[in-house]
Amino acid sequence: MSENTSLNLNELFYPKSLAVVGASPKRGYLNRWGGNTFIEGAINLNFPGNIYPVNPKAETILGIKTYKSVRDIPGEIDLVIFSIPFSAVLPVMEDCVTKKVKFVHLFTAGFSETGRPELAEIERKLIDLAKKGGIRIVGPNCMGLYCPEGGLAWTSEFPRTPGTIGFVSQSGQLAGHFVQEGGDQRLRFSKVVSFGNAADLKAHDFLEYLADDDKTDIIGAYIEGLKDGRAFFEVARKITQKKPMVVWKGGQTEGGARATQSHTGSLAGSLDIWQALCKQVGLISVNSMEDLIATIGGLQRLPLPTGLNVAILGGAGGGSVTMTDLAEKEGLKVPHLTEKTIRALEEFVPVQGNSAKNPLDIMGALFGGGPKIFGRLIELLRDDPNIDALIFSQNIDMFFRRLDRSFLDDFIKMTVKSMHQLGKPLYLVLGKARSLEGEALRQDVETRYHHYNMATFSSFTMAARVYYNMKIYRDFLSSHNIPIPVFHQSP
Amino acid sequence: MSENTSLNLNELFYPKSLAVVGASPKRGYLNRWGGNTFIEGAINLNFPGNIYPVNPKAETILGIKTYKSVRDIPGEIDLVIFSIPFSAVLPVMEDCVTKKVKFVHLFTAGFSETGRPELAEIERKLIDLAKKGGIRIVGPNCMGLYCPEGGLAWTSEFPRTPGTIGFVSQSGQLAGHFVQEGGDQRLRFSKVVSFGNAADLKAHDFLEYLADDDKTDIIGAYIEGLKDGRAFFEVARKITQKKPMVVWKGGQTEGGARATQSHTGSLAGSLDIWQALCKQVGLISVNSMEDLIATIGGLQRLPLPTGLNVAILGGAGGGSVTMTDLAEKEGLKVPHLTEKTIRALEEFVPVQGNSAKNPLDIMGALFGGGPKIFGRLIELLRDDPNIDALIFSQNIDMFFRRLDRSFLDDFIKMTVKSMHQLGKPLYLVLGKARSLEGEALRQDVETRYHHYNMATFSSFTMAARVYYNMKIYRDFLSSHNIPIPVFHQSP
Repeated sequence: MSENTSLNLNELFYPKSLAVVGASPKRGYLNRWGGNTFIEGAINLNFPGNIYPVNPKAETILGIKTYKSVRDIPGEIDLVIFSIPFSAVLPVMEDCVTKKVKFVHLFTAGFSETGRPELAEIERKLIDLAKKGGIRIVGPNCMGLYCPEGGLAWTSEFPRTPGTIGFVSQSGQLAGHFVQEGGDQRLRFSKVVSFGNAADLKAHDFLEYLADDDKTDIIGAYIEGLKDGRAFFEVARKITQKKPMVVWKGGQTEGGARATQSHTGSLAGSLDIWQALCKQVGLISVNSMEDLIATIGGLQRLPLPTGLNVAILGGAGGGSVTMTDLAEKEGLKVPHLTEKTIRALEEFVPVQGNSAKNPLDIMGALFGGGPKIFGRLIELLRDDPNIDALIFSQNIDMFFRRLDRSFLDDFIKMTVKSMHQLGKPLYLVLGKARSLEGEALRQDVETRYHHYNMATFSSFTMAARVYYNMKIYRDFLSSHNIPIPVFHQSP
Repeated sequence: MSENTSLNLNELFYPKSLAVVGASPKRGYLNRWGGNTFIEGAINLNFPGNIYPVNPKAETILGIKTYKSVRDIPGEIDLVIFSIPFSAVLPVMEDCVTKKVKFVHLFTAGFSETGRPELAEIERKLIDLAKKGGIRIVGPNCMGLYCPEGGLAWTSEFPRTPGTIGFVSQSGQLAGHFVQEGGDQRLRFSKVVSFGNAADLKAHDFLEYLADDDKTDIIGAYIEGLKDGRAFFEVARKITQKKPMVVWKGGQTEGGARATQSHTGSLAGSLDIWQALCKQVGLISVNSMEDLIATIGGLQRLPLPTGLNVAILGGAGGGSVTMTDLAEKEGLKVPHLTEKTIRALEEFVPVQGNSAKNPLDIMGALFGGGPKIFGRLIELLRDDPNIDALIFSQNIDMFFRRLDRSFLDDFIKMTVKSMHQLGKPLYLVLGKARSLEGEALRQDVETRYHHYNMATFSSFTMAARVYYNMKIYRDFLSSHNIPIPVFHQSP
């Protein structure tokens, strides 16, 4: 670890100059995923330093003066991105050593991940050469870096605004999904790293940096296999003392583990040991992209829950039963309300077609009674000691059929107001709509809630799962006498 | 059972005359969910007999001559729907007895499901009165019947075309979701029953009818608690000898079971016993609406799989790892291809950025090579004894970005052709798109695949889960020496 703590990745995430070897003067789909995509990504983020495309046969690329080789570039180069065939990498790395380049990102694939010894050997040679020259390597076989503040991205499709979420990923494809699908949920990022084969810089090196990075409040990771598991859990232990960290492990099954070997050439560990270690160091372990994004969204927007007892609102009949089953299967409790609450509810909830119990099957009464009745319900839940939080499912198709837009506006305001009144976490479920028109409305409503920095979840299961994940992290902090940090942007 | 086997529900599903008590001359949202919705549903389906609205204060409703009471209606009445307050039901039931009505559907709620003894007592009186008069009751507290062929529906939003899927549900809300969300997947229905409190006719009565119904090939059910569990499993045992039956049990958790008590006044059973009994009689047990619809869609469109070994196509890198994990977590195996297949694949799959293993990470080569290369792949999978089926994930966002529409048309045709070439089940995953435009395209593509009667699944997990469910049913049939029935519409 001593080597790593002294490792400074500032010039990797905020390079003053960037060279891209393998940029092309030709347009078209294939070139977008050649070197040009990195140049376009940097331009889109107003990269603050010099960009040097490198191509022996071009004068300019994307309007930028182009150099025949890395050696021909004037001045210092902090970061070079390789987007060339694997057969051509060694001489270019020699040029980088000559130029005293600080970091190289190898987008190039075709090395140890193929499982072929002769190609793994080229990778070893490449890393040896770089190390001797003092160059640190990201990759190979990866998308590299997205740091909106530093002006780096592997596509111009990523959000331009920086945020406080850091992410490290063995898979470039999943890192891209994370940024784009998280971005759709208005999540924003400080640093995202796709590190691929991790032939030199490893997951724990990037995490070490994010642990101390003031710009990063919440950390996520997608890991398939670890080349240094001990270092990973050591840095995780350090992180979870001050920031939450959510980890998704790929290759959890026999077949999945075999698939990771072909993918990044590292062995997948045993799932049971993994889960035990995660628990020990306070990592939140998740099992899908959806879980990962939703949990990070929850951490960003909601306080950590104090208990597992939730009230459920928004269903009717079989829908209420379903939501209760889903909540309890995720580890939550849907307890009785106090007698006091039930008696108070029965004053304004008619018996026919409603149920003044938990789950609350009283949407009919709420639609009939309007904001005043709703405010009364929220007060009752606030004062009920049996209840730690509210999960409120808002069915877009139902709204769509029932309400005119002005009613919907009022309903959203009422919900936002209730979040403040409640004084307990409010988990809002906005399930997918059936029709395209409904889906357009849902996205509009979701954006408005996010504008108020309210968390929304695309399914009831997801809300319940995130709730449980956040409670687990709070329990970890409490059991280690760590004060609950305020990493979420309280609304 | 002797009482039930002689019970004929033909005149319930195909009544020659229908009276609706509590229809209203006023328009508006609330009346749509009063009696008028049943009249509109019947009109929409060209109900073949007489419709009699009943309201003491109206001359006509929805343009149909209206009667002051059931007694005033001329001629015989097969089915009367009650949409009146619970306080008004007894005298109307007396009228029905006088008129020798055959069936009554009690949409009216507010009886035993409230948990109040005095209201449960009214329910008992009502059923006693009906029984003495020879009337059989659906409900109370339910949506009743949807039988497109018989001209019955509780809303005019349901599909008009009949199909071969039967469904019985304790919850009217979930029965409605089933018809509408299943309908979006182009599933069509023979008979759907929401039976609510089941004070007289019970789940097993309706299932007994569907067991022998030539119009019903596949049966689904949503059950919370059973008033006669033995009769239910007896009829299920009879059904699964000739048709598949998929059951979703609500109230699986402590809180969920409590919620069912408040909902339909019946006790939920133990989940473990439930699962064991389902397995014993060959029921496919599922845990959500999504599972239920996807499994029934699979049964309708795909043959039962012979083994658990699947090839996976359509992912790259981390995405392939993820899909493999999901498949194996659902009980499938993602085995090695034979050496012969791998060698043949390597002839046309370049090593860089592809992986000629299972999961197949070769979309780059397929996009480059076109239909001929794809056809070759399908042949190899057809001939590979290690592989029982193919799960092919088609990412709409990727298509959307990469391909023009004519390419997409060709791609769909190529996929349809490959289904015939493969000679093994092809499970097609069409995941949700990120953007609205992407989602519109996805729905278009899905409709086109359904036109070819191909099954599509909205997530990889769902495809894998349905595959496993169908394999379980095949194993049940085999172990009981029952010939595999052809209940699916083979494409």
